[in-house]
This record gives sequence, structure tokens and C-alpha cells, in this order.
Amino acid sequence: MGMTIAEKILAAHSGHDHVVPGQLIECATDLVLCHEITTPAALRMLEERGMDRVFDPSKIVAVPDHSVPAMNIKAAKMYQKLKSWVKEKGIEHFYDVGRGGIAHVVLENTGLIKPGQTLVSGDSHTCNAGALGCFATGVGSTDLAGAIYAGKVWFKVPETMLIRVTGQMQPGVTPKDLVLEVIKRIGADGANYLVMEWVGDTIDRLDMEGRFTLTNMAIEAGGKTGIVAVDDTTRAFLTERGVTPDQYTEYTSDPDAQYKVVIDLDASAVEPTVAYPHIPSNGRVAGSDRIAVTHAYVGSCTNGRIGDLREVARIMKGRKVAEGVQMIVVPATQAIWKQAAQEGLLEIFVDAGASVSYPSCGACLGMHSGVLGPDDVCISSSNRNFVGRMGDPSAQIYLASPATVAASAVTGFISDPRAYNEGGEAAD
Amino acid sequence: MGMTIAEKILAAHSGHDHVVPGQLIECATDLVLCHEITTPAALRMLEERGMDRVFDPSKIVAVPDHSVPAMNIKAAKMYQKLKSWVKEKGIEHFYDVGRGGIAHVVLENTGLIKPGQTLVSGDSHTCNAGALGCFATGVGSTDLAGAIYAGKVWFKVPETMLIRVTGQMQPGVTPKDLVLEVIKRIGADGANYLVMEWVGDTIDRLDMEGRFTLTNMAIEAGGKTGIVAVDDTTRAFLTERGVTPDQYTEYTSDPDAQYKVVIDLDASAVEPTVAYPHIPSNGRVAGSDRIAVTHAYVGSCTNGRIGDLREVARIMKGRKVAEGVQMIVVPATQAIWKQAAQEGLLEIFVDAGASVSYPSCGACLGMHSGVLGPDDVCISSSNRNFVGRMGDPSAQIYLASPATVAASAVTGFISDPRAYNEGGEAAD
Repeated sequence: MGMTIAEKILAAHSGHDHVVPGQLIECATDLVLCHEITTPAALRMLEERGMDRVFDPSKIVAVPDHSVPAMNIKAAKMYQKLKSWVKEKGIEHFYDVGRGGIAHVVLENTGLIKPGQTLVSGDSHTCNAGALGCFATGVGSTDLAGAIYAGKVWFKVPETMLIRVTGQMQPGVTPKDLVLEVIKRIGADGANYLVMEWVGDTIDRLDMEGRFTLTNMAIEAGGKTGIVAVDDTTRAFLTERGVTPDQYTEYTSDPDAQYKVVIDLDASAVEPTVAYPHIPSNGRVAGSDRIAVTHAYVGSCTNGRIGDLREVARIMKGRKVAEGVQMIVVPATQAIWKQAAQEGLLEIFVDAGASVSYPSCGACLGMHSGVLGPDDVCISSSNRNFVGRMGDPSAQIYLASPATVAASAVTGFISDPRAYNEGGEAAD
Repeated sequence: MGMTIAEKILAAHSGHDHVVPGQLIECATDLVLCHEITTPAALRMLEERGMDRVFDPSKIVAVPDHSVPAMNIKAAKMYQKLKSWVKEKGIEHFYDVGRGGIAHVVLENTGLIKPGQTLVSGDSHTCNAGALGCFATGVGSTDLAGAIYAGKVWFKVPETMLIRVTGQMQPGVTPKDLVLEVIKRIGADGANYLVMEWVGDTIDRLDMEGRFTLTNMAIEAGGKTGIVAVDDTTRAFLTERGVTPDQYTEYTSDPDAQYKVVIDLDASAVEPTVAYPHIPSNGRVAGSDRIAVTHAYVGSCTNGRIGDLREVARIMKGRKVAEGVQMIVVPATQAIWKQAAQEGLLEIFVDAGASVSYPSCGACLGMHSGVLGPDDVCISSSNRNFVGRMGDPSAQIYLASPATVAASAVTGFISDPRAYNEGGEAAD
């Protein structure tokens, strides 16, 4: 029986020729990603057990991103803990505050994570890296501790869901809309413990940024991870980052691979989609209802990349953030920040009346830099709109593409970004 | 008997021809500045007493700046309170998040505060505006409530300290060094309830940014306010902001005005000065001791202006923030942020490994965006280095000029910025 990409990777990392869904395996981890929120708890477990070591300091990537620069003393202590551990253990890859950014986006650009590899981290959006054809998943602090100590984790081999996307996306429709549409169809638990494997000519045409947005959101459907097979786009992306094909293994799913379920999506029929409160599967077409917003947020590991910022700038240029709306733009990494500055994008945002933040996860999970108050209404390019996710439990979070966030920030109401397409009613 | 500038302004605002120090007066306020931290308490007092009105919605300037974008739900609520009050009362001058910045620096550039006027705010650095030849001072929330309600406050007319600064500052020495030197001499209580009036050829040559740095720090010596007489520099600054001389009154101190004390300072002898923990008067020459830093902070109402950022960029260009140092640069307002972006300064900071923040008071008072943890050591361009001011009580805060902060960020130790002067040992 054939195997999927994910099964092949897991087989190769557990000493098996073949694995089947449901099988329990001990899986070697090629890379462990550590941020300052969940890592200290893992380290404490190891310290309490006299197991305070790292399996390989060259295979750990440490990136403080959630609560830095620190928003309170507790956060400062967690950052200090990560930093002192990095120093003590000689962790080779440390992207300190000011040199890194949001861990998942930092990592995807390092060349450290490669196709065919396994990656774990104490963060649910670790699935992001799956766009590079690797098996990347979030684990709890206990499993993280095990990975740090032994370079291994236990997995139950997951089944795979095949998502076949074909056709040309309409102008103004983005990968974020595709994934929100898929989650709308299958439900927020529709991919529970499944690998979400994306294929089809639409995916083939997507750049890496768009693919990361898709795999990043796997967890929002309950998925164990998302994955996209390596192709020329992947190879070119890696080459630019100094990684050559001899350094990695490309896996493809066998023709007779078994899928738990196959989803077919016609990309040309997808419209700008907004996930209404309080669950990412609650998608509707942008602008269906007249919903006034108090906050507009562009950022997160899902949609804080340079292409996202360009799209927002295209819509914001020469326009103003609507009165009464607080807009925050958060480039995902220092490198993206610099690129956006050089392209003049940040000036456009500031000129429009948006706040541009240092890279951070802050607002996305209501930690700092844009926490919502009672009854606030936020249109957000992030990934999760649970009750209280971004602040007060009474706040309403609507998830959308960066383009939809920009269009909504300008009008003050959740709006369809297609009005800003060439020839659109609001276009220049 | 002659009067000082401050006495003349207070006389004119209390219906007297003449006032003397110690006299209690009821003083009309031309402008009331309101931010989101102290204003809600004042509003609550008024609401509880059925006195919920504003004396003149055109004379109130509201600028959220301390805890925005909100770092927690409580902060979001305080912002909401300010914003809803602005809307309800028709406050004419509201600089919302993304349109304003640090209130004092926003205000100085609005043209709303003019020479000869009186300004109060529930913030101790309100004295900042005194560089424009007005009487500007911080008050508690109770007095703020009175000012909002009645446009009046009670004052005991303060005595004045004359600070006469003459001579040419050395390259690499800045107004921040002058004021730290003065505070070192007179003590952190050396100007208790005194007006600090700055005169002399050194002051005459200072641009408005430098003068704001001087008056801003008055409170760090216990001063009621700082003040600088109007001259061509002031007039040109105001003209650029649409304020013409017919719109304001210029006061000068009489030749026979009475001063409580006169301080003479030879600016040419002032060296780059660092106020050691835990009091702003604890000044020593920068680089006297080898002190490793973990944090470097450029920002605040004292030193977050475009000239400050240019000075930092001059030193940082082509250099890197030392390993292990977290550097944060916070342009004081959106306008300064944009200007710095346009000049390419922000790219220099990010390239060097610094975090560039949205405008905010955050790190200065340990509220967010750079709170210090236990035993952290920060070199800071801000104004106050009390125990716990920027975070954990065990953290050490060293106050200095932006140039000294930049030089220290690069070396990792508190350093003399004169090494980066033309021909200096570290200069290009």
C-alpha cells in the first residue's frame, strides 16, 4: 500500500520502511523550535528531573516572539530564561529580539528547516513550516521537553486529508480566503488529527508565502499539520536561502496512497471570506453584513509577510484609516520590516493613520500591542477568533485576508476588497 | 518689584497685575492635556458629583499614549473611556492611536499651545511645553478634574531658579547632558516647586528640540516647570506650525525680577553625562566605569524627537547592536516616525538589530514594549531612573543622551559617544 508524504517522512524518522495511520512511532526530530512562552515550562520539567540537557545544540532554534519586548516583568523573566538557557547550552540558532521576529516566519526563512524533515515546537502554528514539504507540528511542553532532551517525540501516525484546489482565484481573493473556505466546509474540527495535504493547479501557482498561509491554518481545522509537496517554487525559495537540493529529501505521495477524505475546491468560486465570531469555520462573504469595526489588525504568523504588506499598502495608499478605527500593522520579522521600510510600505501605513509595531505575536493572542476591550470589534488577518483570544471575552473577532482587513480599515466596516481591484468601484 | 516670565503669565491668568511667590491664585487654564491613564480617574470624580462637563471642548487636547495599543484589557478599557468621553463631549482635539503619539511631543507640534499660555495635564512631564514660553505643569487627577470642569486650577505662585548656560557645547554633548549636569549639581530636589528658567547664549543657540529636552526634565529636579523665553527660534518653530505672533503673548523676565537662586553653567565644560541608578541627580561622565548593559532604549517625551533619532542613526549606521543587548527605538510621534522612515533612519536601526516601536510611553515607565526583568541593566534616553521605574525593582537604569545610548548599544557597555565624533576613535 502506498504512503502519503507525511507517512513517508514519519517512516523515515522512526526506522520503519512503512508506517500506517494509527501506528505509534518514536519519531526523531530534525529541528526543535523554542519560544519564550512554552519553553521555560519544558525546561523546568527537565531541571526538576536532573535531565537538564539538549540533544543537539545545533538542532534547536530559539526565537522569543510572543511577549517581547516584554510587556511586564513576568514576560521579561520568561525571555531571560530562554536567553540564559541558549547561552548555557550553546544553542546555535538564537534569533534575539531585534534580530528575529515571529518564530514560524523567522524559521521558514532561515534555511534551517528543509523538505523531508521533522519539526516540533511548543506552539500550535508550527504546522506553518509544512509548506516546505516537511512534517511540522505543535506539541505540549511535556513533549517539547522530551524533544529537547532526546531529539525524539511519540506520534500516532495521522491519516491524511487531500485538499485538491483547482482553477484561477479571482483578483482580490487570496490564499487566506481559500483556507477559510476550506475550514468553513469541513468545520473547525473537520481535520482533527489529520494531515492536510494541499494539491492542485491553484496550489502549484501559489508562491511560498501563500502556501505558508495555508499550512499555518491547519490547526484551525484541528489538523495535525498541513503539507505541500516540493516543486520548483519550493526549490527556488530554498536556493535563495542557501539550501540546495542535495541537502534535503523530497517526498511525494504515492498514487495509491490512502486518504481519509478528499476535498475538492474550485478556487475560481471562492470569494473574499470572513470568519465571523467565534470560530474560524464561521465563514461568510466579506461585506455581506454592515459590521462596524473598532480595530483592524494586519500581522501574525499567518499573514504578516511582505506580500501581505504589499497588498495592504496597495489598498491603503493615499487613503486614511476610518475615524474611530485603530489599525495595527505588524511585519512578521525584522527582515520583512526592513524590506517594507525600503519599499515605502511602512510610510503608507503610518500616513494612513495606522500604528506599525515591531515584529511580535502580541495582538494576535491578546498579549499586548493591541489587546481588545469590551465590545471591541476587530477585523484581523490572524488565525483564531475564539472568545477572548485577542482580549476581552465580549470582543468580536473577524478573521480575513490582509486585503479585506485593509479595505475594512479604510471604510470602517467589514468590506469586500474587490472594490479596490483594478476597475473596482473604490480603485484609484 | 519686577516679575519673572512665569509670574507674569500667572498674573495675567489670575486677574492680577502683579503676583509674588507664595501667593495663592486661581489660575485660568488655556489648555488641558488629557491622556488615558490619569484622565479616567478625573472623569470618574466629576461623574460621581454630577459635574460631568467640560469647560470648553476646544481647549482640551486628548492624546492616548501610555498604554496604547493596549497591552491588556484594563488598558483597553481606559483607552475606551477616553475615546468615548471625547466623542460625548465633542472634544475638538483628539489624536487617536495611529494619529498622535506621546502626548507632550504631539502637543508641542500642534500649534495649540502658545507662548504666554497656561497648560495643565495629569502628567508630570507637562513641563515639557515650557520651552515655548508658556507655564505648563503637571497636576493630580483631582486638579485635573477641576481644570476640565472649570478651566481653572489653584496655584501657589512658585519662586524661580535662573539657569544661565554659556559657552559652546563640545561635539557629542547634547542638551540632555546639560540638564543631567544641572540636576547633578542641584540635586533631584534642588528645584522643588521652583520654575527653572533657562537663559544664556548656549540656550539661545539651541533648537526647539533641545529646549524641550531641558524643560521636560524640570520635574526630575522637583521643579514646578521649566521655561525658556520666546526668541526667533521659537517664533520660527511656531510659524512653521501655523501660529503667528499676533496669536500669542511674549513675556520676558524683568531685569529686576527676583530669583530664588541663580545657577551658572559653562556648557563647554559639560561632558556626556550618565545618571546612575537610582536617581537622576547621580550623574557621572559616560564611560567612567565599565558597565555592561542588557537593554538600550531610545525614546520618551524627553528624547524621542527626529534630531535624537538622527543622532542615533549617525552612530548606528553600518554598526550592529552588541550581542546580548536588546535595543528599542521609539519615535515619539507618528509624524516623527514617518519622517524617520523617509530619511532611512528606521532601516538603519532595524538593520543594526534594534526593534522599532510604534510611538508610546511603554518602556519608559515599565508599562509594556520593553519592561525590564530582574538585574537587567538599561541605558536609556528617558527621564527617570527610580527603583522599578522600567520594570523589576532590581533592574538598573542609567539615563543618558540618545548619542550615549547608541554608543553603548554598539559596544555593549556604557560608552562615551565622543568616540563617534568626526575624528573620534570609533568614527568612520
